Amino acid sequence: MTEITGPDAVERLKELVEDIDFTMLTTVDDDGNLVSRPMSTREMDEAGDIWFFTSDDTDKVDEARAHRDVGLSYCDAKGMRYVSVDGKAAIVHDKAKMAELYSPSLDVWFEQGLDTPGIALLKVTPRVSEFWEPAKGKIAMAAGMLKSLVTKDTPDDDIMNHGKIVR
Amino acid sequence: MTEITGPDAVERLKELVEDIDFTMLTTVDDDGNLVSRPMSTREMDEAGDIWFFTSDDTDKVDEARAHRDVGLSYCDAKGMRYVSVDGKAAIVHDKAKMAELYSPSLDVWFEQGLDTPGIALLKVTPRVSEFWEPAKGKIAMAAGMLKSLVTKDTPDDDIMNHGKIVR
Repeated sequence: MTEITGPDAVERLKELVEDIDFTMLTTVDDDGNLVSRPMSTREMDEAGDIWFFTSDDTDKVDEARAHRDVGLSYCDAKGMRYVSVDGKAAIVHDKAKMAELYSPSLDVWFEQGLDTPGIALLKVTPRVSEFWEPAKGKIAMAAGMLKSLVTKDTPDDDIMNHGKIVR
Repeated sequence: MTEITGPDAVERLKELVEDIDFTMLTTVDDDGNLVSRPMSTREMDEAGDIWFFTSDDTDKVDEARAHRDVGLSYCDAKGMRYVSVDGKAAIVHDKAKMAELYSPSLDVWFEQGLDTPGIALLKVTPRVSEFWEPAKGKIAMAAGMLKSLVTKDTPDDDIMNHGKIVR
C-alpha cells in the first residue's frame, strides 16, 4: 500500500467523506452494544469536524451523549473506497451553523425545516481517521462509469424497505 | 418505510451481507475508541453467524478478544443499501471450517494459504441486525447497471492507497 500522509491525507479525507456522503454512525448503547445507522454528511469543516443533522429525540443522540466515543464508517463498495473515523460526538444547537448547513432536500426529515422542534446538529471531532481506496487508474474506468450513475436523491418513505432482526 | 420481518428479513440480510461482501468491522480499543477497518465476508451461515478470515497477530483480534462486542457496517453507497450488525466476536481455529471457507483469492493476504502461521477465523454472532435499501424498482435501473460493473478483484499491494490522520 502507498501511504498518504500530512495535508494530502487531510484533503483526500475531506473529499472522500463529502463525496461518499452517507456514513454508518456507530454508537455504544447502555449495554455496550455497537449500534449503527446511516447518516448523511453535511460537511467536514476547516477544523476537521464532521457535521450531521439529527433530532434531539433519537436513540443516537441519547447514546452519543452518554458515550461520547463514536465511530463513522464510510464505504463505497463499488469504488472500493473505505473510511474509518473514530471520534468524539457533541450535540450542537447553533442556529447560524444550522442555517449554513441546511438544504431543502432535508425537508424530507424535517417537515418544518430549521423550525422543526428538536432539530439539532451532531458534530464528530475525529481522533483517528483512516481511509483505503484504489490508487489512481487501477479501477478508474469502472469508477468513472459508476460516478456518472450516482443518484443523490433523498429517499422518501415508500422508497425504502427496512428490516430488523433481533436474536 | 416498509418493514421487512421474519424469514424474509433473515433471507435478505444474508443476501445483502454476502453480496456487499466488504464490511467495516468496528471494535473497541482499550481506551474506548471505536476503530473500524474493511473486511471481506466469507459467508453468513445457517445459524446466522458471519465469518471472516483474519490473523492472530492483528489489533482487531486483540480488540475482539478483549471486548467481544463488535459492530459490522455494510454500505453500498451507489445502491443505497446499508446493513448494521451488532454482535459478539469469537476467534476460531477450526481447520475444517477454514478449508470450507477458503478461496485462492485469499492467497494475497495468506501467502501459504491455510498453512499460513496465525491464520484464523473471526466469527460474528449477530445480536441485532438492521438493513436499509431502496424498494424494488425505485432505483432498479441504476442498480441493475451498476451490478454488471462490480469487480470482485482482490487488491494487491500497489493498487491501494492508505491514509492515516492522528489528531
